[in-house]
Amino acid sequence: MRLSRYFLPILKENPKEAEIVSHRLMLRAGMIRQETAGIYAWLPLGLRVLNKVTGIIREEQNRAGAVELLMPTIQPADLWRESGRYDAYGKEMLRITDRHEREMLFGPTNEEMITEIFRGYVRSYKDLPLNLYHIQWKFRDEIRPRFGTMRSREFLMKDAYSFDLDKEGARHAYNAMFTAYLRTFARMGLKAVPMKADTGPIGGDLSHEFIILADTGESAVFCHSDYLSFDTPAADTDFGDRAGLQQLVDRWTSLYAATEEMHDEAGFAAVPEDRRLAARGIEVGHIFYFGTKYSEPMNAVVAGPDGQLRPVHMGSYGIGPSRLVAALIEANHDEAGIIWPDAVAPFNVAILDLKAGDSATAAACEDLYRQLSARGLDVLLDDRDERAGGKFATADLIGAPWQILVGPKGLANGQVELKRRATGERELVSPADAVARICG
Amino acid sequence: MRLSRYFLPILKENPKEAEIVSHRLMLRAGMIRQETAGIYAWLPLGLRVLNKVTGIIREEQNRAGAVELLMPTIQPADLWRESGRYDAYGKEMLRITDRHEREMLFGPTNEEMITEIFRGYVRSYKDLPLNLYHIQWKFRDEIRPRFGTMRSREFLMKDAYSFDLDKEGARHAYNAMFTAYLRTFARMGLKAVPMKADTGPIGGDLSHEFIILADTGESAVFCHSDYLSFDTPAADTDFGDRAGLQQLVDRWTSLYAATEEMHDEAGFAAVPEDRRLAARGIEVGHIFYFGTKYSEPMNAVVAGPDGQLRPVHMGSYGIGPSRLVAALIEANHDEAGIIWPDAVAPFNVAILDLKAGDSATAAACEDLYRQLSARGLDVLLDDRDERAGGKFATADLIGAPWQILVGPKGLANGQVELKRRATGERELVSPADAVARICG
Repeated sequence: MRLSRYFLPILKENPKEAEIVSHRLMLRAGMIRQETAGIYAWLPLGLRVLNKVTGIIREEQNRAGAVELLMPTIQPADLWRESGRYDAYGKEMLRITDRHEREMLFGPTNEEMITEIFRGYVRSYKDLPLNLYHIQWKFRDEIRPRFGTMRSREFLMKDAYSFDLDKEGARHAYNAMFTAYLRTFARMGLKAVPMKADTGPIGGDLSHEFIILADTGESAVFCHSDYLSFDTPAADTDFGDRAGLQQLVDRWTSLYAATEEMHDEAGFAAVPEDRRLAARGIEVGHIFYFGTKYSEPMNAVVAGPDGQLRPVHMGSYGIGPSRLVAALIEANHDEAGIIWPDAVAPFNVAILDLKAGDSATAAACEDLYRQLSARGLDVLLDDRDERAGGKFATADLIGAPWQILVGPKGLANGQVELKRRATGERELVSPADAVARICG
Repeated sequence: MRLSRYFLPILKENPKEAEIVSHRLMLRAGMIRQETAGIYAWLPLGLRVLNKVTGIIREEQNRAGAVELLMPTIQPADLWRESGRYDAYGKEMLRITDRHEREMLFGPTNEEMITEIFRGYVRSYKDLPLNLYHIQWKFRDEIRPRFGTMRSREFLMKDAYSFDLDKEGARHAYNAMFTAYLRTFARMGLKAVPMKADTGPIGGDLSHEFIILADTGESAVFCHSDYLSFDTPAADTDFGDRAGLQQLVDRWTSLYAATEEMHDEAGFAAVPEDRRLAARGIEVGHIFYFGTKYSEPMNAVVAGPDGQLRPVHMGSYGIGPSRLVAALIEANHDEAGIIWPDAVAPFNVAILDLKAGDSATAAACEDLYRQLSARGLDVLLDDRDERAGGKFATADLIGAPWQILVGPKGLANGQVELKRRATGERELVSPADAVARICG
């Protein structure tokens, strides 16, 4: 993308309304714009990151055997009356009346709707196990939305729903999602620790939150520091291997880990003192097993091998990509701006033409742009008529992992400057070596 | 995808509520499920097609220089008061009140919001031209939603908005989208004819609808038949070439073409008799130039080269992907089911294991599945424990362009049957030749 033809509205001033660093940087870097309280437009740079994040989530959901569909945002109220949650949900649910006075709502989650879809088609245990997910905008009418996309009203959620004949099957489905989540966050360069959690309004008796550590995190967390050095489950993990997955989950739940809500001083005291980690954390995923909580009242039943009908055992599994973008920034930034992990960077490389109007730098930049783009990288070429200082600041703010600085003096010696955003390291190399270093 | 692990709920009966063939086939093929009047869930097969359609739209928007962002579904009512459309829009607008009694709405279109975003950042003619688009769910509270996703209440729309300093610039932006639309529909295997259109509630004085011809189309259309043999604009069209694009658009608007609404008997009578085409059509795209209709009341102004502030000239450009999926089926089906054009097929190839439980057919199917998947094709392997007849019917219904029928007898002779869905032609070939034919 040539910046002269892009829409990247950088803010020079720090926006006053932003209380946390990710909100501030997302506004300054032209990633989002607030349209009204807790409702944001994703500007081109922000949308690129959101798409990278959902792309990784999707790949790992598919790998674990979940199948993608897409449910609508608007739901009929009657569905929620069947589960008993219509009245229980309270004011966070955005209730809507259509032109025919029918009661509807903007979905805050989809347990009811997916159960309705399931019961509409599935009759036999032979069609199980089944795990269906979608990535769709949700609405929760927070009384005081804040922190940008970290706690917004309209937000994107990946929610998966598993259906099994019995509790053992459901436990396996839970373990598969647990494993997929570990891989998902690790691929984004995040250290996520699973912590036992309250089930809240979703219900059920088994639940974990996935928490990433960040100094600016929303809540205190306490865990055994060994979690931070655990290996991520491999890409070729056999998701059909029940015992293998159980072993993996057992290991990842064997040590102490708790959010403030669930914290137990005595349990934490039992951790060797040099392994006690008290830190700040951000919740980026939440998984639930809730058995027949929805299938029973909504009559989602299948015939077992014995011909008897029984309600299916279900779980649900959520990640908020729009919140995750903010969490990624909380975990990856410095004074100058964002430092994107490679896998979620909106652009892998920023090429800076340090002397707009110079035909030699322009030609060298175009050549680098073509070569890197041809190798499948997302490249931003700053070809604006702007001073070098402004280009440095923009590149640091938007946080592409690599920068190539192309100036007339260096170029006269056949060199460009290659800069790593994370460390600030710079080195003079030939354009060909810059490409080789980035792609190598 | 192995069908045994997929979610493809085929209906054996013809659904009574479906009045048109695309609605019937989308329900029968397990592509969609109605959740309430005019609101659908996209089941996995349907979502695959929807994603192929939006993928092509996105590529052609980007090629024409439009930049993608993503606006929220919920909008504040005040924005629409600024343009004067809040009261004018009527009951089709889904109006919502939040917990703080703030008036909001589920966006039926985004002229107001994009104008608000534009005016928040852009100050100078130097930042123009600009064309911003998004692909997002919209809501129009149709009094009588019907025809499935052809006329639903919650529907997906790609809407682009162009901003230019003057009318000439805006006309070029219009021509670029006109050209992009011709390419978009042609890539989906559709013959789309641009027809002069009413501007309706969007406003403005220049507008074209893109109409595809289908026997089961919603309305009568009349045009010169030469349009059907016009060449599609090339992939390397120079979208910066004002004169070139104007010439292209002039040619595509030089002959008679009108929907029933705009039909003029005298104009049509002037078409040579053997070139008069009276047919049925479906609107799949609509583009508008409306000048300063929104920029003036909403004060979206930029400084020109002379330093004077002036309201920008705008246009908007819509395609409904969820409607387009239905239109594609109206144009591509037979008695047995859907016949997908290659570019939008949910699966390029269906492999049918005609004897479940036979280790030789299973191995041959797996081998074909691996080879074709490795070449980047989307492959569905029907590995269910079901009779061959049921598998034939399913494959024809869901309409993959290629089928490979793998039975024990043929396999004993080293052969499988390769079937082209569109023509029904079958031939016996070796598995290697089947792969070569499909990929060649």
